[in-house]
This record gives sequence, structure tokens and C-alpha cells, in this order.
Amino acid sequence: MTDLSGLELYSFWRSSAAYRIRVALALKGLHAKTHAINLEQGEQLQPAFLAVNPQGAVPALIVPGHPPITQSLAILEFLDETAPTPPLLPADPFGRARVRSLASLMVADTHPLVVPRMRKYLTTTGGFDMDAWRAWQMQWFGAGMRTLEKRLANDPETGAFCHGDAVTMADICVMSVNAVMRVFKIAFDDIPTVDRIVARCAALDAFANADPFKQPGAPAQ
Amino acid sequence: MTDLSGLELYSFWRSSAAYRIRVALALKGLHAKTHAINLEQGEQLQPAFLAVNPQGAVPALIVPGHPPITQSLAILEFLDETAPTPPLLPADPFGRARVRSLASLMVADTHPLVVPRMRKYLTTTGGFDMDAWRAWQMQWFGAGMRTLEKRLANDPETGAFCHGDAVTMADICVMSVNAVMRVFKIAFDDIPTVDRIVARCAALDAFANADPFKQPGAPAQ
Repeated sequence: MTDLSGLELYSFWRSSAAYRIRVALALKGLHAKTHAINLEQGEQLQPAFLAVNPQGAVPALIVPGHPPITQSLAILEFLDETAPTPPLLPADPFGRARVRSLASLMVADTHPLVVPRMRKYLTTTGGFDMDAWRAWQMQWFGAGMRTLEKRLANDPETGAFCHGDAVTMADICVMSVNAVMRVFKIAFDDIPTVDRIVARCAALDAFANADPFKQPGAPAQ
Repeated sequence: MTDLSGLELYSFWRSSAAYRIRVALALKGLHAKTHAINLEQGEQLQPAFLAVNPQGAVPALIVPGHPPITQSLAILEFLDETAPTPPLLPADPFGRARVRSLASLMVADTHPLVVPRMRKYLTTTGGFDMDAWRAWQMQWFGAGMRTLEKRLANDPETGAFCHGDAVTMADICVMSVNAVMRVFKIAFDDIPTVDRIVARCAALDAFANADPFKQPGAPAQ
């Protein structure tokens, strides 16, 4: 068994990727001491944090005596392997593939397009004004959420949550994108299945307590 | 045991994500009948393919009698679970986390920024000319590859390949981005560790035979 005592998490209140880890830790009953890295003030590019993660990105999970673990999907898989109860993936390989595919739709195909470094590049080098940035956000949050809706609405494997009636990695990743949408006051009125699952998740403590606006450093909502 | 006979793969010669699956199938000695979906002619948005993957993206893997499996990371994990030899992940959870983190750096933080739908949006709605698109490509391929170099060069766990001396999911994902860089004639001269690993992988049949330019529909190089 891997000893998961003394965990530390590098986080930022608004980070979608850090949110995922907060939820997974809570679901599994694990505690991590949190270090807030202010991405807006560039703390992720200071030498102290680059020594933790040369990418200069949160989250990073520290298990004492081991190298930092980075990238939210890798951390979620690690936590599921080393603290298997409750599981974040179903038992059968086809179910696991479906959950991981839904997670990737959020984590690989949606979220990286709307992170701060995109805004920075597009609004400086890219010549975008704030309206163009807003249109970009709407385009890619919208594409991700509408594809998700199509996949969930037409699939008998969708249940109370994204996959059946237990929370999985897919729900965590959907909620992580939803959390950022709420920060930026972005909503869509044509994703009823997604909305239903989001509401169901939001009622659970593990999700509610991970909310961006409840983290240190967050502005009043 | 899951029956992996009669596999079918929806692919496109230039797709980085489909490349990953071709390599994994070859490493594991699996054969899949390939259906070429021409992304440049919009075949991914035709009803026939949307019935396979509502996202309209390749790859999609068909295991007869089961729903299509989409998203390259989900397919790689599925193949590793159902055809475990040779493994694409190390055995220990910290090693697995490191490999998955390197894979995510490529698959989530690099590749989605340079796919055709980005070019389409930026060069129409976004007002980018071809020089601006080229600068965008250089920026995000460069950021991904230079972060990868930093992580690999300074880590004793890097070996002949990204993680020790056996091919893992990380190498597959690095090579998949490298393959697209070659298609677009993009190279960097400050990533020696990455270059060394790329050369080592390229010498293996599983990678060489997956090369974009060797696929049906590819132009002469």
C-alpha cells in the first residue's frame, strides 16, 4: 500500500484542474495541506514553484518522499490506484473507456483552450479585444458542452451521473469545467442532460466544498 | 478476457491522435481494419461518422459488439488494460503517474491548440493571417516541447525512452506531436533530450510504420 499521509496540494482558487483534485481527495476521504499559487500574479513562474513543476502549472500533488505528481488526469488516476475506495472508474474496461473518454473531452478538448495563457496570448500577440476573447470562450466552452450533451443524452449508460449512478472521473471533469464557466458567468440553455448531472453533483459535499468561490484567495461572488 | 478480434479504427493520415492508436496496436501485435476519415473534406461531420462519434473527431476504435471507444488517451488505457503485453505503463503507481503526466502534457496541453478546428476558427473568425497562424503553431508546439525537454532532461527517471528503458504511453504521445510537427515542417534546436528519444522511437517498426506519410491518403513527402 502507498502511504498517502502528509499530502500537499499546490492549487489556485479558480483553477479547473486543481478543482478536480480537491473533489477526488474529498471523495476518498484524504486530506492535503494546500499551498495557494496565485496564477494572476505569476507565482507559478517563480523559481520556488518551478522547482515543484517545471511547467509552471497547478495542480501539483506532493506525496512525501516522492517526486511531485502533475497533470490533473495523472493525479486522478494515481489517487484511484492508491486509494481505491470509492472508485472513480467503473470496473469493466468498456465502462472505464467511456468514462475516460468523457473526461478527455473536458480536460483535453475543452479546458486547455480557455486557460489564462490562451487569454494572454490572444489578447496581446493575437490582437483579440475583450469581445473577441469572450466570443472565443463561448465558442469552445459551447463546443465542449454541446458535444458532451449529445454524448450523454443519447447513451443508455448515462444515469444519475455521467456513467450510471455513481460519481466517476467524468463527473469530476465536467464539474471542473462548469466551475470555470460559473466564474466567467457563461451558461448555455441547450444542455439539459449536463445541467441535470451538474445539479446532482453540486448537491454533494465533495463538490460543494471544492467550489472555486470557497477557496482561499477567491473574490466575493 | 476481452475479445479484441475484428477491431476497426477510424483514422486520418495526419491525425496525431489516430497515430497514437496505430502505434499502440502495433506494439501489442493487434490488427485493426482502418477506415480513413478525411478531416480536410469534412467527412468527420457527415451523419455516417457522427453516428460513430458525435464529437466528429478521430480516432474511434470499434470492438465488435460494443459501443465505439473515442479519445486517444481512453483508447490507449483500454488497450493497455485488455492487451497488457507489452505494458504501456510502468507497474508502480508513481511511475504510472509520471508517464501519464508526460502524456497529458502532450495530449491535453499541446496538441488541442494546434488542431484543424483551431486553425479554422483563428483564420476566419479570429482574423489571423497565415503568418499569425504560423506564429501560433510555433508558440504552442514550442511551449509543449520546451516544457517536455525541461522535465525529461532533469529527471533521473528518464532513460533511453521518456520513462526508463521501455516504451510507454509517454513516448507514444511525444511521437504523435512530433509527427504533426514534421507534417508542418516545424522543428526546434533546443530540445536535445526530446530529439534523442524521438530518434530512438523512430527506429522501432511500431513507430516507423505508423508514420503519417505512410498512411492511405497522405501526400508524397
